[in-house]
Amino acid sequence: MEDKHMLMIPGPTPVPEKVLLAMAKHPIGHRSSDFSEIIAEITENLKWLHQTQSDVLMLTVSGTGAMEAGIINFLSPGDRVLVGNNGKFGERWGKISRAFGLEVEEITAEWGKALDPEAFREKLAADNQKSIKAVIITHSETSTGVLNDLETINKYVKDHGEALIIVDAVTSLGAFNVPVDDWGLDVVGSGAQKGYMIPPGLGFVSVSAKAWKAYETATIPKFYLDLGAYKKATDKNSSPFTPPVNLMYGLQMALQMMKAEGLEGMFSRHRRLTEATRAGVKALGLPLLAADEVTSTAVTAVMPTGVEAEAIRSTMKKHFDIALAGGQDHLKGKIFRIGHLGFVSDRDVLTAIAALESTLITLGYQGATPGAGIAASSKILG
Amino acid sequence: MEDKHMLMIPGPTPVPEKVLLAMAKHPIGHRSSDFSEIIAEITENLKWLHQTQSDVLMLTVSGTGAMEAGIINFLSPGDRVLVGNNGKFGERWGKISRAFGLEVEEITAEWGKALDPEAFREKLAADNQKSIKAVIITHSETSTGVLNDLETINKYVKDHGEALIIVDAVTSLGAFNVPVDDWGLDVVGSGAQKGYMIPPGLGFVSVSAKAWKAYETATIPKFYLDLGAYKKATDKNSSPFTPPVNLMYGLQMALQMMKAEGLEGMFSRHRRLTEATRAGVKALGLPLLAADEVTSTAVTAVMPTGVEAEAIRSTMKKHFDIALAGGQDHLKGKIFRIGHLGFVSDRDVLTAIAALESTLITLGYQGATPGAGIAASSKILG
Repeated sequence: MEDKHMLMIPGPTPVPEKVLLAMAKHPIGHRSSDFSEIIAEITENLKWLHQTQSDVLMLTVSGTGAMEAGIINFLSPGDRVLVGNNGKFGERWGKISRAFGLEVEEITAEWGKALDPEAFREKLAADNQKSIKAVIITHSETSTGVLNDLETINKYVKDHGEALIIVDAVTSLGAFNVPVDDWGLDVVGSGAQKGYMIPPGLGFVSVSAKAWKAYETATIPKFYLDLGAYKKATDKNSSPFTPPVNLMYGLQMALQMMKAEGLEGMFSRHRRLTEATRAGVKALGLPLLAADEVTSTAVTAVMPTGVEAEAIRSTMKKHFDIALAGGQDHLKGKIFRIGHLGFVSDRDVLTAIAALESTLITLGYQGATPGAGIAASSKILG
Repeated sequence: MEDKHMLMIPGPTPVPEKVLLAMAKHPIGHRSSDFSEIIAEITENLKWLHQTQSDVLMLTVSGTGAMEAGIINFLSPGDRVLVGNNGKFGERWGKISRAFGLEVEEITAEWGKALDPEAFREKLAADNQKSIKAVIITHSETSTGVLNDLETINKYVKDHGEALIIVDAVTSLGAFNVPVDDWGLDVVGSGAQKGYMIPPGLGFVSVSAKAWKAYETATIPKFYLDLGAYKKATDKNSSPFTPPVNLMYGLQMALQMMKAEGLEGMFSRHRRLTEATRAGVKALGLPLLAADEVTSTAVTAVMPTGVEAEAIRSTMKKHFDIALAGGQDHLKGKIFRIGHLGFVSDRDVLTAIAALESTLITLGYQGATPGAGIAASSKILG
């Protein structure tokens, strides 16, 4: 049916009508006092969302651009970095680091498994020369639905004392507790089309005082992504380059909605949606890629047996207008991913599980008892 | 009055209602086949707008980001470049070039004057070693309303034979003829919130075959701005990183509107709006910053005497809800700028001149005969 599309992918995520309508307003000049007030409000609320008193900067970039800024502003060519790689995005931060001449050591885990904090502890504890300048971690690995144990890894970074912790929180911020100041996270990158509930086109980077100190001596060349320029402008409620005015209208509204729900409300909702999704999928006899203990609260990856992942995606889309994500790289065709991040309600998860049940029947899958998925999800949501 | 705002600045420019409403649609997945079709249509129409058979790539960046990509992808540290600098933006491309280790030679002109093509000819003709790798030119200098003679400068670049011509067409594309293939322009950067008639958040870079050849050996580090990745994705109607889906809905609509008007229609409208604005301002006794022969068709800078530029801007805003731009850097407080770029009609210019007349009366300015501005503008528009 036309216009009956339902997004259940890990980004872009669904956008509230209020946000869409805010974005449909005529733009105003980005150097006007009226727009400065919007920047001021947004900046304050971004700090609330990040649980930080330090800087949160906005850039006209995708999440990758935000992470690149978060890496290149604080390091110099030849600097040694530890990069966690257990999926598409961890792999990408390694690529970025190498592209800018950093000496990259990767700590890897199989896609679908979590990074082992102990591997970080060992490397960091052995670094008596303090040659490790940064540890780069993907918190929620979108490609697999795995949440890495940032809190523990970060403790080892703090024990090291010198290295910065640079975090990809693209699909964890807003969906899981990321207390930037409490944990002492130096750099946290994120993107609009995820927990923020707005369309893509804005990236965010939080920067600690320790990271700003590293910035002073960092020599990787930069201009458009030079966070010093963003800080200088943000301190005056301005932006160094023309910002995406209409997306920021949407962001202003979305942050107001987030504040109304509260951080605890957001985190517990995402936890509930995750549990309900996993319970429903499991009850239908479909294996999950990530174990319960390491699940992201943004996305659930399912690795079906006895039925093709792409057949499920295709039927879900054709029959029910529900968009699910596929697998990336070597997981392409092997998994499908259900996004439950951002503007997603209990009803949405129930709908997705109901449609998945129906789809499995359509595809002649024998492993599920009809009704078992909804029964299991309802138990969590009830 | 609330919501009665009228934008007459050189960006963001006014956005058609159709475009705003297109942007208010729910996002869809950027990896879906439906979205691939949108990318395909947009890419074809961008080539039409650029009058090129070569590549036009879309990035989630401001105009500055597009220009940075246009510079760093084709050069290596230590490369010698000639940069034209006769305003805020020419100055910025010099700063970017230096930030990435290029050996910059600037050819300057006073703000408000055009660059002298002869100065380029001399430098290029004297370069027997062919050490000049690129010439970087701002076509329409937004800060002053001056149009540089790109066509002539480019001829000298072609005579040189080796150097690339890299063009900032941010406020000329769509407002003035920029025939990319006919002139053999290697790299052309532009931004959404200008002639494109959509809000800020997208940058565009066209790339010639010669520029792609230079790309192969260029060593400035890059990842998010690596145009090779954008080309590879665009060839498959995709994008390397998450694109700003809703802005692209708007762009799709805006390009359809541009095609309906036609290139000639767009260029002649901008020429007419420029002449009407200049005639009206002159008839009111206010001096223009740029001479008739070198005027941009995007923006008119006025340097009033006997009345404060900021008083004019303030009264225009307070009384008539018309936003004009101020001066930048050393021209701050000395000039005001009237934007007539993008979705601007004859009526808008007439309105601005009428309000300017009224404002001058309010401010007690003695230099104008009441009615003279509208009389002069009408003569052009009639």
